[in-house]
Amino acid sequence: MAAHPEKMALDAAQFKGHWQERFEKVQPLHLEVGMGKGQFIIGMAKAHPEINFIGLEIESTVAAIALKKALPEKLPNLQMIRADGAGLETFFTDGSIERIYLNFSDPWPKTRHEKRRLTYKSFLANYQRVLKPGGGLELKTDNMGFFEYSLTSFNNYGLVFDGVWLDLHHAAENEGNVETEYEQRFAALGQPIYKVKAHFKAE
Amino acid sequence: MAAHPEKMALDAAQFKGHWQERFEKVQPLHLEVGMGKGQFIIGMAKAHPEINFIGLEIESTVAAIALKKALPEKLPNLQMIRADGAGLETFFTDGSIERIYLNFSDPWPKTRHEKRRLTYKSFLANYQRVLKPGGGLELKTDNMGFFEYSLTSFNNYGLVFDGVWLDLHHAAENEGNVETEYEQRFAALGQPIYKVKAHFKAE
Repeated sequence: MAAHPEKMALDAAQFKGHWQERFEKVQPLHLEVGMGKGQFIIGMAKAHPEINFIGLEIESTVAAIALKKALPEKLPNLQMIRADGAGLETFFTDGSIERIYLNFSDPWPKTRHEKRRLTYKSFLANYQRVLKPGGGLELKTDNMGFFEYSLTSFNNYGLVFDGVWLDLHHAAENEGNVETEYEQRFAALGQPIYKVKAHFKAE
Repeated sequence: MAAHPEKMALDAAQFKGHWQERFEKVQPLHLEVGMGKGQFIIGMAKAHPEINFIGLEIESTVAAIALKKALPEKLPNLQMIRADGAGLETFFTDGSIERIYLNFSDPWPKTRHEKRRLTYKSFLANYQRVLKPGGGLELKTDNMGFFEYSLTSFNNYGLVFDGVWLDLHHAAENEGNVETEYEQRFAALGQPIYKVKAHFKAE
């Protein structure tokens, strides 16, 4: 990953306030927290050249796979970060992002691990901070307990739901859905994929 | 039904402000909008003698079945109404109810029938009016589309979620669940039952 500093930021904090300079054009910025092996964020960058995408991943081995997949695509609107999502506000200036994606995040099912879930209120506060006022948050998961928790957590935080899907792959309005590696495998087994699309109040 | 005016109100408006006089004791009041054949509201009245329950049903033939089931139980904390749920504010004074239940309501799946759904915003406004400040609203359904819609509608109205269940009958916190006739049949087929428990903001 160190061989491709133009694509993968290993010290994300140094680019705070300067992310747009790493893209070909200044465009709205969308962030995926936990990009895994990168299929979703690469697919989104291909499908939406009018948006700048950043994929963030904490695990080095997985981030390296995502980078390897991304390089041959030569997408001028895609950047990657190897970092802990808990530190978002050290990487991004307030109000600099339009939309955040959470895909198949670790459900941390034990109650004592609630604070580690990427939909716990402290994470939501961080998302709200780096998002523009009224910014969007989209979540997909196959984990029922995590989805139940996340719906309640989003609602209790004051997020406004734009839509809820309890079986995304059999929904009428599924056009344009870009699948993650995990989603592709999981949905093939006939299991439902859950999604919620929401936004923070502009205040 | 006309033979049992002590149990079934056919002209509910005449009791506005006087419902508590129809029960043995003055106690918190819970209302089911659309009680169907009554199994849920009768079961709740048996399980919770410390609460006064009213079951409301628009369909006369179904309300008559509920009444027939209720009479031999001789429950002093159960009353019934044959009326249209759209007229709640003509039957109940503002702030007189603690909790409202919606069980397996008609999903009205066509978009042009959205306003008929019991979770459409105009119905939510009526519930809020007759409920005490901070009053509760609980919904159970087997209809995925109706549940997706209701979660979004509740959230958009400003209701605060207390819990969401995407497979109630296999959930750990399912104790005390009183089943409707329909729920019993449906769950026996292994289909998931959805539930959301929420409350209005006290303001």
